[in-house]
Amino acid sequence: MLFTSERHLDNAVLEREFTLGEVPGILWTPSAAAEPAPLILLGQQGGLQRMYPRLVGRARSSAELGIASAAVELPGSGDRPRLPDLERARADLRRAVAAGEPVDDEIVERLILPLVDRAVPEWQATLDALLALPELGGPVGLSGGVFAIGIRMAALDPRIAAAALFAGSYVPAAMFEEARRVTVPLHVMLQWDDEGNDRQQALDLFDAFGSPEKTLHANMGGHTGIPQFEGEAVGRFFTRHLR
Amino acid sequence: MLFTSERHLDNAVLEREFTLGEVPGILWTPSAAAEPAPLILLGQQGGLQRMYPRLVGRARSSAELGIASAAVELPGSGDRPRLPDLERARADLRRAVAAGEPVDDEIVERLILPLVDRAVPEWQATLDALLALPELGGPVGLSGGVFAIGIRMAALDPRIAAAALFAGSYVPAAMFEEARRVTVPLHVMLQWDDEGNDRQQALDLFDAFGSPEKTLHANMGGHTGIPQFEGEAVGRFFTRHLR
Repeated sequence: MLFTSERHLDNAVLEREFTLGEVPGILWTPSAAAEPAPLILLGQQGGLQRMYPRLVGRARSSAELGIASAAVELPGSGDRPRLPDLERARADLRRAVAAGEPVDDEIVERLILPLVDRAVPEWQATLDALLALPELGGPVGLSGGVFAIGIRMAALDPRIAAAALFAGSYVPAAMFEEARRVTVPLHVMLQWDDEGNDRQQALDLFDAFGSPEKTLHANMGGHTGIPQFEGEAVGRFFTRHLR
Repeated sequence: MLFTSERHLDNAVLEREFTLGEVPGILWTPSAAAEPAPLILLGQQGGLQRMYPRLVGRARSSAELGIASAAVELPGSGDRPRLPDLERARADLRRAVAAGEPVDDEIVERLILPLVDRAVPEWQATLDALLALPELGGPVGLSGGVFAIGIRMAALDPRIAAAALFAGSYVPAAMFEEARRVTVPLHVMLQWDDEGNDRQQALDLFDAFGSPEKTLHANMGGHTGIPQFEGEAVGRFFTRHLR
């Protein structure tokens, strides 16, 4: 891991850009931390620079709770090389949604599975590198981003202690088995009228998760309309499980 | 309204029992309130004395937020005369559940509609009397209890400013129209594996509510397993809308 920039935000947060192989990322650590901090992997929909204002807001809120945050660019997004198969699947999805057609699981598989297959090893390598830093000690939380990536990470990586997942993107039916294997505490957010999601599938996935502690928070509005008090609820969830 | 007893709890809450006609109730007001307090009507499943430990806990938490609470006995419960039709419907419901049969809407109507028809005018009369007290100023919130009573109160009574409803009891299909007329901010709690409830109906009712701000919080476990952090979330909901 190579740090490429470093700056302080309001003397409260140290922000460092890094690259891990070809994957760019950003690490935010609370300046005041006296001991190794827990870490939240911040998911996003791709395009780190475009998502930066929202990501840094979430990272600042977590730093106030003494928790570090990190985000890495998704495969095929931002400055990373495009993935032609993924682009085709994305175009097919947009076409189906625009035509008011049901979104076929075959499209979802082509869109999501290659992304998950590529992203999860990168996220795990990121965790390997970050947790080797003396200022980070775990436990690790997952927050938002592509729903299916969060599901596989939570099912697969024993370092994940809690996950706040956003049921805001499609999940291939083939991944329900992975959802059943998730056992960490879960906080699942659902936007009730999300135009880019299937509400019934989100409810079925919530039902499928194997976690003894899981909470679903459904709020009104579309994909980007998550209310501010929901962000605060996520903060309390991570305070309960990471601090 | 006749106050029949009065005592202070830890110098923080003034607890007064009262009767309004034949309806017994309890009023809790924060001792430290400098101005007329908002009020939460605490719903419960009937049997004020049996429910007292949980009710006084909720009332104490609200008093810490500067909010008064009141609860009244349900028709046919506690020391009030039994209602034979209701008892028959309750027995029919228990029989159906024990036999693993689907709960027929006809049973739900016989069980719930007479209760709602009787309780709502009593709750409104209670509000008339309580809001005439100088120490209470509104706005008024509804918290928990029989789901259908909360729905009609929220739909009908313009003094209700916000409602935290527990989707923990059946609602007759005929009441969906009333749910559509509810427009106040809603916080709906659902226990995902509630044995005394129909999950799909609860989700359909959440969808039906006309409120622009509505949030569903689903947690794991049965009817009585609402986690403590959910009670705190309700407190924050009322702080947002009543303070």
